[in-house]
Amino acid sequence: MGITLEQAQAAIQAAHRKALEMGVKMNIAVVDAGANLTAFVRMDDAWLGSLDISIKKAKTARFFDMPTGDLGKASQPGGSLYNIEHSNGGLITFPGGLPIMDSGNRVIGAIGVSGSSVEDDHAVAEAGVKAIQGQ
Amino acid sequence: MGITLEQAQAAIQAAHRKALEMGVKMNIAVVDAGANLTAFVRMDDAWLGSLDISIKKAKTARFFDMPTGDLGKASQPGGSLYNIEHSNGGLITFPGGLPIMDSGNRVIGAIGVSGSSVEDDHAVAEAGVKAIQGQ
Amino acid sequence: MGITLEQAQAAIQAAHRKALEMGVKMNIAVVDAGANLTAFVRMDDAWLGSLDISIKKAKTARFFDMPTGDLGKASQPGGSLYNIEHSNGGLITFPGGLPIMDSGNRVIGAIGVSGSSVEDDHAVAEAGVKAIQGQ
Amino acid sequence: MGITLEQAQAAIQAAHRKALEMGVKMNIAVVDAGANLTAFVRMDDAWLGSLDISIKKAKTARFFDMPTGDLGKASQPGGSLYNIEHSNGGLITFPGGLPIMDSGNRVIGAIGVSGSSVEDDHAVAEAGVKAIQGQ
Repeated sequence: MGITLEQAQAAIQAAHRKALEMGVKMNIAVVDAGANLTAFVRMDDAWLGSLDISIKKAKTARFFDMPTGDLGKASQPGGSLYNIEHSNGGLITFPGGLPIMDSGNRVIGAIGVSGSSVEDDHAVAEAGVKAIQGQ
Repeated sequence: MGITLEQAQAAIQAAHRKALEMGVKMNIAVVDAGANLTAFVRMDDAWLGSLDISIKKAKTARFFDMPTGDLGKASQPGGSLYNIEHSNGGLITFPGGLPIMDSGNRVIGAIGVSGSSVEDDHAVAEAGVKAIQGQ
Repeated sequence: MGITLEQAQAAIQAAHRKALEMGVKMNIAVVDAGANLTAFVRMDDAWLGSLDISIKKAKTARFFDMPTGDLGKASQPGGSLYNIEHSNGGLITFPGGLPIMDSGNRVIGAIGVSGSSVEDDHAVAEAGVKAIQGQ
Repeated sequence: MGITLEQAQAAIQAAHRKALEMGVKMNIAVVDAGANLTAFVRMDDAWLGSLDISIKKAKTARFFDMPTGDLGKASQPGGSLYNIEHSNGGLITFPGGLPIMDSGNRVIGAIGVSGSSVEDDHAVAEAGVKAIQGQ
């Protein structure tokens, strides 16, 4: 459904290369249009707790077809989606998850990255998306 | 802990190549010595239900340091480990999961494969192990 | 409730000593009368998958106030308690779990052992019970 | 993996002694480098609800190799890791969990304590760490 394994691996390879350049240790997950895990790598000595977070970020980005950080703005106390994180077996709503679109702007999957600051996580996820976006 | 990402990817690549040769569509998972997911790929159009099974096979093989099919012999009705599958959040005890040893014969991780018959799953897992066993 | 930490630790120490004598690597868990974990040890290099099993054996023994193996006789296909393992977040019904009684024959807790054959697991659990039974 | 049972028991014994001195009733858990439970004690009449919290604190400290309270600073509403607690089957991000390092400053495990105020929990965890840190 949507993203192919070849595309998913190209996204992960690009994200992995970016992480090596930045000197950070990441967990990188790609899910397909059905939000099912398609490819995953955990860099040596990356935080163990980031394994689950990277997969949840990728799923969250596909569940709602938006960057995870956007969802997090609405899930704060008093926000319209307060504590939406309780659904779907646990969402992650801070940055590091991004949907991936094809050339027709349809969502074909998503990438989730975890292992450093949320800014670093987002930058590595973006590198993955750029490698295959619009194909 | 144990297996490196480079080793895990080499195992997955060899298993993937074997699956392509055999004309089967597999989910292939590698866990480290702590039974944590290290690398994963799902081939295009592989059974969705095999995603979780491949990861559980890899974990089961590391949890007990033996091929998953060996455990399954003892978990049958009347067997000494009947219904052991209810532990650890769910085990898979039919063939397709194998521990991976280093040159000193210590378990450094495990591979789990699911997507075809258990004979095919086992053959693909074996190809993955052979690529890096004893390194 | 029921067993004290001092008693639980005495049971674990006796079971641990027995395991060392037998040359087996065990996970040993003691729960109180409320089936809540009271003390636990995992011997170096014991199977990772036995951690959860040892705790589930202790809980199962207290849930039904009988040796886990006795329950397993009734949970076989065609048996009166077929697949009871699906309850309580997962039961383990093969040997290795034993209730612990006080001098008035009331159940004050239970011990669960996992890491070797079910005969070995049972022998180590029995050593733990004997150290404090009837106190 | 990482911490030995002997080290884990020394940490728990020191933490237990500290809790007795302070007159508080604690649950004390130690996990290894793979975040798997290695040793545990629950003092008589300690809060039942603190059992799970002590284990989750130890796991959280190892998942991210930092004191649990540090993570909690970033997981507040508006913080960069808001609601990270929904990952990994539930994290605990207030004080009482601490990583344990060896002499080479590598994380070999973690301790988690729960049963009193977070200040008390932290003090007892610290006593456990000091008993074996840097060995």
